[in-house]
Parts: sequence; structure tokens; C-alpha cells
Amino acid sequence: MALYPHPRLDDVSLETALHALADSCRLGIVRRLDSQTGELSCQSAAQAGEVPKSTLSNHFKILRGAGLIRTRAAGREYLSSLRREEFDARFPGLLDTVLRQPRD
Amino acid sequence: MALYPHPRLDDVSLETALHALADSCRLGIVRRLDSQTGELSCQSAAQAGEVPKSTLSNHFKILRGAGLIRTRAAGREYLSSLRREEFDARFPGLLDTVLRQPRD
Repeated sequence: MALYPHPRLDDVSLETALHALADSCRLGIVRRLDSQTGELSCQSAAQAGEVPKSTLSNHFKILRGAGLIRTRAAGREYLSSLRREEFDARFPGLLDTVLRQPRD
Repeated sequence: MALYPHPRLDDVSLETALHALADSCRLGIVRRLDSQTGELSCQSAAQAGEVPKSTLSNHFKILRGAGLIRTRAAGREYLSSLRREEFDARFPGLLDTVLRQPRD
């Protein structure tokens, strides 16, 4: 089973982090992962029945590339969790500030 | 002389704001406008001699569309300024948090 690459946070630029958060589907995934401590399957994290699987995979790839999430294989599922502490250490206050913004 | 459209901040989504900030050239423009109170010409704000004019125009358009800057015509120049108070009221703490992130 393929292992996904996860960057070191030092290698993630601010622009990459902001771009990853600049999408309502990806923001939703991050919010859902943030609202619970454990891991979620991609489908549970995305709650996106209408979104094509390839689109969803790309969203998760962008989130991984920004150091926001970690994905691991668990049997036939892929489980994702937020890299909260690492991300907060790299970009102090950024995720908290984004997540507490008023929702449209 | 063409007048640029400027959105009401209420009409700007968080995703649009984050996308506007998710680019090193645009972040540079915002930093430069933030570091002084007045207006800057596009060239002064961008300090981007190598960047094609059309690319630069597009960056300014994206910043205007996100409610980050206001551009007005002044003779043969276009002067831009940050919509700091309005943006801060719409997205509390966001711009401060982004601008104080460690530079790469």
C-alpha cells in the first residue's frame, strides 16, 4: 500500500500553508479534524458525498503538502489527522486565527 | 480613466482572502503597503522589476478582489493603499497573524 509523503514543516512556506487553507472543502476537512483529537477516514473528514474522489484526493494531497495533515493506511482505509503541534510551531497562531474567523 | 471595482468586505469570503495572501509577490505588496501609511504606485508597492506588467496587474486585481487594497487613479499613475481597518473588521487578526509569520 502506497505511503504518502509528508514534508518537514521547515520545508513548508507560508504561501503553501495559506493556499492549502484557501478552499472551502479543505477548510472543512481541517475544521473537522480539528474538532476531534483522533483520526478520520477521508470520507468522514471531507463529508463530501458529491465531490468526485479524484478531487477529494487532490485536496488531501494539498493538505499533506502544506504540513497540515498526516495520512496513514489502516487496512483498506486511509486515516488522516491534523499535525496541529508541528503546524502551530511553524506558523504560530495561524491555524487558530483562520479557524476562528466568522463563517459565511 | 477606468475605475477599478472594490468589493464590500462583507462580500469577501475567507477563502478569497486567504488565496489573495497565498502568493509571495502579493504578500510582498501587502507588507510594503502595511509598512507605510500612505499610498504607493503599483511599481513601488510591488518592487518587481522582473515581473511582467500583466502579471503584476493580475496580482493587484486579486488583492482588490479580496478587499485588501484600494486603487485610485492619480494623473497617469495608479495609487494603492491597504484597506486595513475594513479588512481587520471583517477578518479579525488575520492580516496581523499572516504578516508576523517568520519569513523564509
